[in-house]
Amino acid sequence: MRAWIAWRPDEVLLLAGYFPFWGASLLIHFVDRDPILFVPQIEPRDHIPAGLSVEEYPWGDLKCSDPYSVLVSAVGDELVKAKISPEQAGMNPSASRTSLPIQAAEQIPMPEDFAGLLSAVAAKRDGRCRADFANLYLRKTSEEKRAIQLANRVANVGLEVFFENLQPGITEAEVGAAVESAIYREIGREGIFHSRGWAMVQSGANSADAGRFNRSTGRRLKNGELVLIELATCVNGYWSDLTRTAAVGSPEPEAASLLELVGEAQQAAIDAIRPGVSAGDIDAAARDKITAQGLASFFPHHTGHHVGFRYHDPGFLMVPGESAELEAGMVITIEPGVYIPERGAGARIEDNVVVTESGHEVLSRITGSEENEAKKRDQG
Amino acid sequence: MRAWIAWRPDEVLLLAGYFPFWGASLLIHFVDRDPILFVPQIEPRDHIPAGLSVEEYPWGDLKCSDPYSVLVSAVGDELVKAKISPEQAGMNPSASRTSLPIQAAEQIPMPEDFAGLLSAVAAKRDGRCRADFANLYLRKTSEEKRAIQLANRVANVGLEVFFENLQPGITEAEVGAAVESAIYREIGREGIFHSRGWAMVQSGANSADAGRFNRSTGRRLKNGELVLIELATCVNGYWSDLTRTAAVGSPEPEAASLLELVGEAQQAAIDAIRPGVSAGDIDAAARDKITAQGLASFFPHHTGHHVGFRYHDPGFLMVPGESAELEAGMVITIEPGVYIPERGAGARIEDNVVVTESGHEVLSRITGSEENEAKKRDQG
Repeated sequence: MRAWIAWRPDEVLLLAGYFPFWGASLLIHFVDRDPILFVPQIEPRDHIPAGLSVEEYPWGDLKCSDPYSVLVSAVGDELVKAKISPEQAGMNPSASRTSLPIQAAEQIPMPEDFAGLLSAVAAKRDGRCRADFANLYLRKTSEEKRAIQLANRVANVGLEVFFENLQPGITEAEVGAAVESAIYREIGREGIFHSRGWAMVQSGANSADAGRFNRSTGRRLKNGELVLIELATCVNGYWSDLTRTAAVGSPEPEAASLLELVGEAQQAAIDAIRPGVSAGDIDAAARDKITAQGLASFFPHHTGHHVGFRYHDPGFLMVPGESAELEAGMVITIEPGVYIPERGAGARIEDNVVVTESGHEVLSRITGSEENEAKKRDQG
Repeated sequence: MRAWIAWRPDEVLLLAGYFPFWGASLLIHFVDRDPILFVPQIEPRDHIPAGLSVEEYPWGDLKCSDPYSVLVSAVGDELVKAKISPEQAGMNPSASRTSLPIQAAEQIPMPEDFAGLLSAVAAKRDGRCRADFANLYLRKTSEEKRAIQLANRVANVGLEVFFENLQPGITEAEVGAAVESAIYREIGREGIFHSRGWAMVQSGANSADAGRFNRSTGRRLKNGELVLIELATCVNGYWSDLTRTAAVGSPEPEAASLLELVGEAQQAAIDAIRPGVSAGDIDAAARDKITAQGLASFFPHHTGHHVGFRYHDPGFLMVPGESAELEAGMVITIEPGVYIPERGAGARIEDNVVVTESGHEVLSRITGSEENEAKKRDQG
């Protein structure tokens, strides 16, 4: 393979460090020359990395009804110039399993068979070359690690608002709205041009559903019960995926013991993280704690997944029996959960952890206030 | 064609009145018998319309790695039972140009070739049957009209917050965050189980970009300048698409005249709406006003589109020369805009309008306060 044609937003981010606004950008990533980024003429230009060669194609122009044919033809010209045949150019034809771009309310209309159009100039899409590409998601560079850490810092600003709002009488939706709002408001702070959260809050009996789905309803919080927040945060294209569970006021005894168990299970899995450990062993570290309490059937999902370029990156899961091994540079979630409908209670705690040469570092435990303290120390 | 296999969220909404949570629901819509809805086992059940027959398929279960094959096989069984051959079952294979489901942070992972899998049981996808289906989006029922009106009422709650926040010193992102938060908080009010806004705010010189893209930055609002908000709102699956432009404090004279012109152009197009008028004539009503001021080249986009099942419904656009005619029951946007980079200013005003037998009704001009007043009158 001599070139990869990336048109899915997270592929463009991974290869060029650019997070598309409209989701209709295309990058020719050459093996042996500088990449070329194609953007629709309606794309903002101010966050395209300096030094990246950019070409525009018509879009949103009343005079051009078929922008994508213009794009594919321009891509073909560049490949011909580089003497690369369609069989030497790889691509992923799927429009699903990619991240939403910055404009996330609706996908930009693309031809239903855009991948088919594109295959006239980029035809290599066998499993081997696709699997090689998917492997690129697994090990993050130090620059990507910093970007994911920034997403986690912003997410923590939202989580502080979550904890502040745990008062009897407020609705789940009101709590979620406050959290998302705090995250959106971070736009404009140093280095942040895009910041969006999806905060889903489940209280009391609703928390028992959190292993199947996450959403906020109009239910009002009550004293002593558990409240769970699932929080996806995208900052400049990089993702954090966190969960917290806390009690409104003092937890009832059963709620407290559930929280404690999930916390212990999570810490056991985090403690096990280092290069060379299998994903199955990470899962077992958490799952064994829950099984020992006779609650195995109430922990129905994986213990973790890769994260960073998407809310859920491709790659192996932390599930029972998975033999794939952790390597330095990987960023994974650790998120055991126990959901007991009969008790009307569920709890999950999720953090994002980078595997380091010597063990691990939890990216999501730097809170906004800690960061502020650190800044003050730096300045003082 | 004897059955339509709907698996795209807005198709399921259109045919069954159900807005999928995960985006992985599938509806068999039979021509001559009751429909069947398939949902993943992780789907919430509380908003599935009463009386709709529901089957579940495995998903998110550690023990089932291939839920979609189970689903396709179950769909095939139902079609065989109804003696419907693959050639008699239609479907739209495209994963793009559909609405996001309730869980909008990331699309649920589907097999890249889900449509290919499905074609073993539903193979009819010629242009004619697809075009017939797309026509279903055009004329809304009175129930759908009410649902779109509700989305517009919620959007207006957000717009009131927009106007309240137009103060010097606040950032675009802070205004957008406040608007989205107000919309999210509506969840739990009577009849509202899902409410999400995408608010994009552009102030001063940034408003001149609003014909190409909409986003919020960290720029702070200044006295006298224009601020534009593009607001997409989804309530229970139905969409509103609105734009407002207003000045911070008293507008500068040039800003005031731009606002006035765009308002006049919009009103001219709205006034022209009635059954039998062509889309091109609607466009001309707005465009002529702008052309008469020598500003034709600063209005680069369509005057409107269909709306309701999606942020942008399929169907003809209000563009120059379009001969398709309006019919009662259609819901369209009217959104002329003028963006002048040299003046560092842009303005667009967008409303959602239903075509009635006798003319039209603007769905988006009922504000939250008017609605409250009306409620008080009803109760008093």
